[in-house]
Amino acid sequence: MQLATQLDKLGTETAFAVSGAAAAWAAKGHKVYPFHLGDINIATPANIVEATYKAIKDGYTGYCAAAGIPELRAVLAEDVGSKRGIQYRAENVSVQPGGKPVIGKFIAAVMNPGDEVLYPNPGYPIYESQIEYLGGVGLPYGYIETATGFALDMEAIKRSITPRTKALIYNNYQNPTGAQSTRQEMEELAELAIEHDLWVMSDDAYYEILYGVQPDSIVNLPGMQERTVILYTCSKRFAMTGWRLGAAIGPKSIIDVINKLNTNVESCSPHFIQRAMVEAIPGDTTGPDAIVETLLERRDAAVAGLKAINGVSIAKPQSTFYLFPNVTAIMERKGFTDVNQLMTEALTTTDVSFCTRKHFGRPLAGEKHHYIRLAYSGINVENIQTGLARLKEYFEA
Amino acid sequence: MQLATQLDKLGTETAFAVSGAAAAWAAKGHKVYPFHLGDINIATPANIVEATYKAIKDGYTGYCAAAGIPELRAVLAEDVGSKRGIQYRAENVSVQPGGKPVIGKFIAAVMNPGDEVLYPNPGYPIYESQIEYLGGVGLPYGYIETATGFALDMEAIKRSITPRTKALIYNNYQNPTGAQSTRQEMEELAELAIEHDLWVMSDDAYYEILYGVQPDSIVNLPGMQERTVILYTCSKRFAMTGWRLGAAIGPKSIIDVINKLNTNVESCSPHFIQRAMVEAIPGDTTGPDAIVETLLERRDAAVAGLKAINGVSIAKPQSTFYLFPNVTAIMERKGFTDVNQLMTEALTTTDVSFCTRKHFGRPLAGEKHHYIRLAYSGINVENIQTGLARLKEYFEA
Repeated sequence: MQLATQLDKLGTETAFAVSGAAAAWAAKGHKVYPFHLGDINIATPANIVEATYKAIKDGYTGYCAAAGIPELRAVLAEDVGSKRGIQYRAENVSVQPGGKPVIGKFIAAVMNPGDEVLYPNPGYPIYESQIEYLGGVGLPYGYIETATGFALDMEAIKRSITPRTKALIYNNYQNPTGAQSTRQEMEELAELAIEHDLWVMSDDAYYEILYGVQPDSIVNLPGMQERTVILYTCSKRFAMTGWRLGAAIGPKSIIDVINKLNTNVESCSPHFIQRAMVEAIPGDTTGPDAIVETLLERRDAAVAGLKAINGVSIAKPQSTFYLFPNVTAIMERKGFTDVNQLMTEALTTTDVSFCTRKHFGRPLAGEKHHYIRLAYSGINVENIQTGLARLKEYFEA
Repeated sequence: MQLATQLDKLGTETAFAVSGAAAAWAAKGHKVYPFHLGDINIATPANIVEATYKAIKDGYTGYCAAAGIPELRAVLAEDVGSKRGIQYRAENVSVQPGGKPVIGKFIAAVMNPGDEVLYPNPGYPIYESQIEYLGGVGLPYGYIETATGFALDMEAIKRSITPRTKALIYNNYQNPTGAQSTRQEMEELAELAIEHDLWVMSDDAYYEILYGVQPDSIVNLPGMQERTVILYTCSKRFAMTGWRLGAAIGPKSIIDVINKLNTNVESCSPHFIQRAMVEAIPGDTTGPDAIVETLLERRDAAVAGLKAINGVSIAKPQSTFYLFPNVTAIMERKGFTDVNQLMTEALTTTDVSFCTRKHFGRPLAGEKHHYIRLAYSGINVENIQTGLARLKEYFEA
């Protein structure tokens, strides 16, 4: 009895190993400063908790439609469309048990074995894993560090497109870099997608985690709505990572197929959570606003803490809850060649835990700089300050 | 922009069309007697509702391990093992968002494209859909009607096994037939699985929906635990169909792979629901016992109602909440050749809605009898009695 050979192509999130190392270090009696977590240590807004309890008591505990309850599909169509300046209908929405399921289902819906899919690297590792597991060829594209953050390596994208390229995965407000496209960058990307007739998945997981800037989406550029599937999630905006509710939003033709996959894969998403979100998504913004406010304070503390370190280069991102500082000078100072050495030594020297560029894809040819990734979603301001002060001492030594 | 060609092989649950027809008929002002639903119209036990609310308030709202929280894995190992007379450890359990995800993940874990998988037909349609969608070849096996219910067509299973046969899907306490294997039948099946070195998925969705009989499982026969993955679900026992919580339980080698699929597919199952079930699964059985008691009353009413119809043949099943009466004589009386004609005419003539054999797979060569499937999980005793009295009048006319 062998297991299926295709499993050899299945990747994972290697960042979980960082959590494991941090937990092991904590178990030895150390207080860990957790900058490695992409989770949020903020409570889900109380109105959502109470609406969920009421929905259970009201009996929304049986199966519902695989596509999601009609009321939630309508609410998401309105909310996601209006925030992007376009129109969706309920039929454009497929409710999912989280944002992540959209990745595999989008790829399964558009890619034939041997087809190529463009994806960001550094980026969320599940893109590459699912492309390769489902029999496709991943075309990674990188980012270029600028004075204000990171820009898409547009020339690399252009160079790698072939007639077999079928789709583009695009993560504006990006994990791990915090990159945010200019309007011009989006227009160039849209032009490429249209010229090469690509499907696009716009991973909008962090679309509402913005600090003082207006959101912008590639989907409202001419010719884009009909080729784009939006990955939507309740996880970040509502601090609901462990609830598992999200949606795929896009052209009816592909949403119908994703709904059929839902029927095969998981029947439906939890009924009463959907019911609760019907009110919460268009409702009171006090809870989500407070979450962003808290994250903003943490961002400022974390950026200040990193800027204070000699040899660390970081611009202040205006979205996500990730920082991706350039630590090349620190690497040289320490004489390390593998950035994971820095991570490992930092944990045992300073109790500070973080991920590195290597947890977000295989480094691309020609990469000369080293980066680490810090998340500030799971650590409060005081611990950010103390942790980064300790890191400063170690990095500057 | 085309969609992926493999989608042509993806099936669905055609029974949803029956729900659609029933809803359309109800919308015209008719009171429908809903025997088509596999859902449960009984409240989830209050202790689970309260434990869930408490878990949310206690902050179990963030991500948890892709494999499930350790406490739930341990509880399921103990509960599922002890009820089957074998031992499992937490490492043998992969928590899932429902029972259904186990089907696709099991097949993905053991089957290479072109491999064959045995599956029951009539049976849950997602088996066939996932086998074919994932590039395998489905080998359907049927049931033979007996004086006491249905028996596996063991000769058909033996005849269809080839060197490319990789796995067997087995659903004791079966949907739609209510079939329950004798110990001897299980032994014969286990012998075949061992002789041909097959992986086995034991769909135990109805393992705890039994009426006055002791459960029995193929997994405790010698040589079976190491080749069997159990599909476990909270849906039926706890009337939690819309909550979406289940598990795959089996050898560590395959559970590790399924956990890796979890990481790729959905991150984790809802955290606070897992937390609630840590207490509920080994805890107070008042709630689950009452659910079975209610279903037992309905079964007796439904079997009595069907037995009263001249031309309907039905044995009393001792598990599940499905009845699969033989209506061949009614078909002859009506002059129908397609059992779905009977279904359609019954709805508009009697307001009684049910599924047929055709919603549970393509009829096998040589099938001479006609069957319909009634579920009594979503209809109370009074409506069972009235509905079947109306059906009697129509069937006997």
